Amino acid sequence: MIPPDDRGLTLGDGLFETVLAQAGQLVDWQAHLHRMAAGCEVLGLPAAEPQEAERLAREALAAAGLDQARAAVRLTLTAGSGGRGLDRPDPVRSRMFAIAAPAPAPLGPARLITAKVRRNADSPASRLKALAYLDNVLARQEARAAGADEAVMVNTRGELACAAAANLFWIRDGRIETPDLACGVLAGVMRARVLAAAAALGEPVAKVRATEAALEAAQAVFLTNSLIGLRPVAAWNGRSFGPSALVDRLAALVAA
Amino acid sequence: MIPPDDRGLTLGDGLFETVLAQAGQLVDWQAHLHRMAAGCEVLGLPAAEPQEAERLAREALAAAGLDQARAAVRLTLTAGSGGRGLDRPDPVRSRMFAIAAPAPAPLGPARLITAKVRRNADSPASRLKALAYLDNVLARQEARAAGADEAVMVNTRGELACAAAANLFWIRDGRIETPDLACGVLAGVMRARVLAAAAALGEPVAKVRATEAALEAAQAVFLTNSLIGLRPVAAWNGRSFGPSALVDRLAALVAA
Repeated sequence: MIPPDDRGLTLGDGLFETVLAQAGQLVDWQAHLHRMAAGCEVLGLPAAEPQEAERLAREALAAAGLDQARAAVRLTLTAGSGGRGLDRPDPVRSRMFAIAAPAPAPLGPARLITAKVRRNADSPASRLKALAYLDNVLARQEARAAGADEAVMVNTRGELACAAAANLFWIRDGRIETPDLACGVLAGVMRARVLAAAAALGEPVAKVRATEAALEAAQAVFLTNSLIGLRPVAAWNGRSFGPSALVDRLAALVAA
Repeated sequence: MIPPDDRGLTLGDGLFETVLAQAGQLVDWQAHLHRMAAGCEVLGLPAAEPQEAERLAREALAAAGLDQARAAVRLTLTAGSGGRGLDRPDPVRSRMFAIAAPAPAPLGPARLITAKVRRNADSPASRLKALAYLDNVLARQEARAAGADEAVMVNTRGELACAAAANLFWIRDGRIETPDLACGVLAGVMRARVLAAAAALGEPVAKVRATEAALEAAQAVFLTNSLIGLRPVAAWNGRSFGPSALVDRLAALVAA
């Protein structure tokens, strides 16, 4: 249980990672820890102690009876208990905890809409897996209200950024493209796997600043995150996309 | 204590109010409750039950031994425990709790800098007192690092919005101005008091969309929130402001 003055709870002051576990193996664990450490540096928080993070993750799996299952481990690091107001206490004593749940069942191709809520291109938090995730919750809510599965988030400069809970890729004129991190994009662990797999196929991914015109011109679109792997997109704002052999090859290469 | 799967903690999915209490009197309590209810409507959350909110606030004051003191009560409402992922459970069972702390001591005139982190003009959350407050924490951090007390936040369209934990006003050519709510501004309870007091003085406040040029041309600048009341600004980005008789009159009128 978490005290009510925890700054993660009161202010969104902290970070998280969502990690796939398979029969007790924490997939891409080092990459997740590395990203959390980089996020702590941006926020000015003491980094997670790696052994402690792994102990918490394993305890959460065991406590949920999921240490032999396909599971999602969420590791959360907050700025700890903080007294009153925006200023952090000195020194900050960060708090870390983990919870585990069954991994989501494999999903069919996604139907997307573009959300009205936009990603803040002028905040470092938009490139982090920060606890202040309300814009993403609202974007997903818009998608559900429209009968879609997921939302495309455009940033405040009008550039494509990501989905509410996934990175975004598309294929245009035979070239794979994804938004540059500068567009307010999380450096997804599965995004990195796709970049490596595409390079290995001789089809390097271009990191671009693009508007929605890129999706209008796309032959295929797909989403990635650590839990879903690579998920093809069936439709975006009512426009349909067919199957793609290249997307299928990438999906097979990045599957955990 | 709060369970680790609370959506306020995991996603910033919730709202808060910070209320001044004086010898057990909750100042502007109805205005705070009304604002929280309006925020719940925007976020699609069940509204707080008013009697329960008041009970929690009074219990927090008593538990802290502050029911006869000048105190800050923070009332928090979250989307409750939510399972995994962005989608809320159906139905949502919101969670509410309150904590109390001594009110901050009166502060001298503030020294401001403009933060690099900007307020998201394209998210409804920027007009709410939402738990996803990390941008404000980062803005305050920038101010402290620069030796200042508070940060001016410009929105992603380049318009003046607010301070990290206060509303912003200035006097330019003898006219009192404040950013329009459409600039990504919280409808502050003390902001409303100032609007009413200024109108009563025959000096109505203009709600404007303005860039930092407005502060460059200002004769006086001040901040407001429920705990500090009205706080004059001594300096912004190194530019100094002298005392203002009109600001002093407003401060006396809005003091609780």
